[in-house]
Amino acid sequence: MLLDKEKRCKSEPGASLGYREEIPEITEAIIRSCEEPGSFTHINHEPIPSRQEVVSIVHALQKLIFPGYFSRESLDATNLRYKIGHSVSRLFDTMAQQIIHSLRHDCFRYDKPCSHCSDQGYETATKLFRAIPDLRRILATDVSAAYDGDPAASSHDEIIFSYPGIFAIAVHRVANILYKDEVPFIPRIMSEYAHSVTGIDIHPGATIGERFAIDHGTGVVIGETTRIGNNVRIYQGVTLGALSLPPDAGNRLKGKKRHPTIEDDVIIYSGTTILGGDTVIGTRSVIGGNVWLTESVPPDTLVVMEAPKLSYRASAQKGKTSHDFT
Amino acid sequence: MLLDKEKRCKSEPGASLGYREEIPEITEAIIRSCEEPGSFTHINHEPIPSRQEVVSIVHALQKLIFPGYFSRESLDATNLRYKIGHSVSRLFDTMAQQIIHSLRHDCFRYDKPCSHCSDQGYETATKLFRAIPDLRRILATDVSAAYDGDPAASSHDEIIFSYPGIFAIAVHRVANILYKDEVPFIPRIMSEYAHSVTGIDIHPGATIGERFAIDHGTGVVIGETTRIGNNVRIYQGVTLGALSLPPDAGNRLKGKKRHPTIEDDVIIYSGTTILGGDTVIGTRSVIGGNVWLTESVPPDTLVVMEAPKLSYRASAQKGKTSHDFT
Amino acid sequence: MLLDKEKRCKSEPGASLGYREEIPEITEAIIRSCEEPGSFTHINHEPIPSRQEVVSIVHALQKLIFPGYFSRESLDATNLRYKIGHSVSRLFDTMAQQIIHSLRHDCFRYDKPCSHCSDQGYETATKLFRAIPDLRRILATDVSAAYDGDPAASSHDEIIFSYPGIFAIAVHRVANILYKDEVPFIPRIMSEYAHSVTGIDIHPGATIGERFAIDHGTGVVIGETTRIGNNVRIYQGVTLGALSLPPDAGNRLKGKKRHPTIEDDVIIYSGTTILGGDTVIGTRSVIGGNVWLTESVPPDTLVVMEAPKLSYRASAQKGKTSHDFT
Repeated sequence: MLLDKEKRCKSEPGASLGYREEIPEITEAIIRSCEEPGSFTHINHEPIPSRQEVVSIVHALQKLIFPGYFSRESLDATNLRYKIGHSVSRLFDTMAQQIIHSLRHDCFRYDKPCSHCSDQGYETATKLFRAIPDLRRILATDVSAAYDGDPAASSHDEIIFSYPGIFAIAVHRVANILYKDEVPFIPRIMSEYAHSVTGIDIHPGATIGERFAIDHGTGVVIGETTRIGNNVRIYQGVTLGALSLPPDAGNRLKGKKRHPTIEDDVIIYSGTTILGGDTVIGTRSVIGGNVWLTESVPPDTLVVMEAPKLSYRASAQKGKTSHDFT
Repeated sequence: MLLDKEKRCKSEPGASLGYREEIPEITEAIIRSCEEPGSFTHINHEPIPSRQEVVSIVHALQKLIFPGYFSRESLDATNLRYKIGHSVSRLFDTMAQQIIHSLRHDCFRYDKPCSHCSDQGYETATKLFRAIPDLRRILATDVSAAYDGDPAASSHDEIIFSYPGIFAIAVHRVANILYKDEVPFIPRIMSEYAHSVTGIDIHPGATIGERFAIDHGTGVVIGETTRIGNNVRIYQGVTLGALSLPPDAGNRLKGKKRHPTIEDDVIIYSGTTILGGDTVIGTRSVIGGNVWLTESVPPDTLVVMEAPKLSYRASAQKGKTSHDFT
Repeated sequence: MLLDKEKRCKSEPGASLGYREEIPEITEAIIRSCEEPGSFTHINHEPIPSRQEVVSIVHALQKLIFPGYFSRESLDATNLRYKIGHSVSRLFDTMAQQIIHSLRHDCFRYDKPCSHCSDQGYETATKLFRAIPDLRRILATDVSAAYDGDPAASSHDEIIFSYPGIFAIAVHRVANILYKDEVPFIPRIMSEYAHSVTGIDIHPGATIGERFAIDHGTGVVIGETTRIGNNVRIYQGVTLGALSLPPDAGNRLKGKKRHPTIEDDVIIYSGTTILGGDTVIGTRSVIGGNVWLTESVPPDTLVVMEAPKLSYRASAQKGKTSHDFT
């Protein structure tokens, strides 16, 4: 049958010719659309930050922060100094260049006062690389916290190799350093890359203490002005967000504290939403799953949703007829 | 200790030999399994659509739609015409070829009447490329809407560089053009690629107006027959879905309106589920977070869930004993 | 204005020199941090499992399991035997090597008794490849189940090409074979890769029957000791998880049955959470959306959440003033 079908196939390979003649017109129409007011383009010869480069930087930093885990060649006592040195040396320039591109782009695009981008780029890159030993120490506390609270974790190495929560937190701790130095674009490109890989959306502005663990993680949202203390553990689908906004909120609320404060030793179970800049979850409190909270909770409190009433009916699928139970 | 351990290591590099002898038998067993009825294979010499090519097309179109943002080399007034022209010319053929492969595959596989795939492929590709200026205009409204409603957005450029919502909507607007031209496979490969990158699952059949904004986005599901007006804003975890289905629904309901209609200027907050083909959310209404809706809402209405009762108890973790609060 | 701005730009390209002098000090600080107790590094010359290799293996296995769907070159009756044979032969060694690396790493790192890693690696790889015909048969039932329950699916091929649920289940069925053979790291790297691509988080230890369908899938979590029967269908955001844990749970509960049992022919709608190792959902039962369940359900039962009370108010956005409804 297939051969028969093939014989009957009327497709003609020459069909493209007529259509290709439209390419110049199509091209001109796209170019004209770039000149329209309110259209978004990026047409000037200043270099811009490159998403692709920033993603490479994220993975190179991951290798520096967890030496030996993510390299194809093994790292040992004899080559450690050379490999780390080579890696720092190369990454340092790439990182500085991307920061400079971001600052220059911002400066030219929005006609800002001179940011002394060249100096600032190297200054911030230096600050970031100097912070690596401390980042390593803090991330070791995060790995330990992930292990201590998860019966499914079989070793610390398994967590570093494969847990999305650790990747998201590592990227956040890097992005937050750049955010605090007011680098445009790059912190958010980094955090949205981690969001894409993990489903965990942490705004680079969020302040997060040590021993922070996120289990499973898909659907987690942590807003820009959130403050999280030490030894906090959250599960998939937890939102730490802002209250509903007036229609012009985009402009009016920029920079204000809009997201909650979570004190030390708090656990928040899956699917829970906590909203508002004045909302404080007191130390050692536990918030159960699926809770919707817009007010503060004192320390040492357990908050759970009263189980919603369930309705049980027989014979759900027996008759194989349509059922509408929603 | 490590060296000692190494000395004790009994691993023998020659172990593979005996096992490799099984390769022919393993190969034959896989080949036999390809001949079984009901088994899924794709063994004939007709080309099939390539997921990898379709993903490349998505990124190439992203560069055409937002010129200068995602290229490594900068775009300026002197090279704009050449770069856009070169890009259109190359993409045009790739796009047409993939459409032709999809149509031929469908035609041969399901013994359909001749789809004149060669002509149809170039016809649809032409339609798509001609639509780019209009896509650019509509996506500019989406970018503006994202900016206007989000205090965490620091510039329009940041949104284009990094917001998953904009990527998902851009891919949807392209996939929807191919869906309406009844191109098999490709629209869904595109939308599932965007789903994979963003956690936002928009069926290519959904009809979506201008100034559409999705914030955070992970877990959003928008079904095939959903209709969304202009200036609608939704948050993470919103489902616009179908009511529960009878067991044989797969066949019986294909093509029917199964998903809701959202009129202009509606806002839907995080975690809300709206179901059913007859459900209409009236213009300017606001649906709060975590709402479960299966009926229509008139215009200018605010619908919120009555806060579920919370139970507060002291000393959640003080004694460090097991607690069961679920 | 742009040119003017450029003229005023004070950025100096020589700025890097002073900063680069700090590279040796930065390098030494990172190396010192690798020697600190409690720090995580992987510095010895034993090879470790490579995440990148494991991801390549996943995609190569996908091509073997669904022949012809994911290759650039087409597969036909004349080249099938050579291509499958070549692919098995190459993959066999790569898979065995990665298993050997994982076993050796585990053995050296945690000073375990000899695992006879070389033999064990080839033994397990052989077992996995021998299982492919059966995996193909079971995955064909999964594809059919996905098609039968989804009015938006236009063909079985579309499901194989693009549905995240099928990818996640295919990867799970492979990872589960390695998990049952107690291969360290690799099963979890595979399942977390699928999680990253699909938003569906299935622990490799979960036991899952035939005709398993996951629709949309983002946010699904299926825990390590879950047991799922045949012909079960679940939707996005469903968690099959553990009850809340005491603080030292990580160690105490390892290996215990902590996650629910779902019997044959059950459907679980979106956003539902089912928790606990003793919780059993009886055969043919249907669990509605957004349900929170911590107890067993008898067979043939329909469980739905009583719709939470909604509050309707007029004029949500009319006055364009701030509204706080949370």
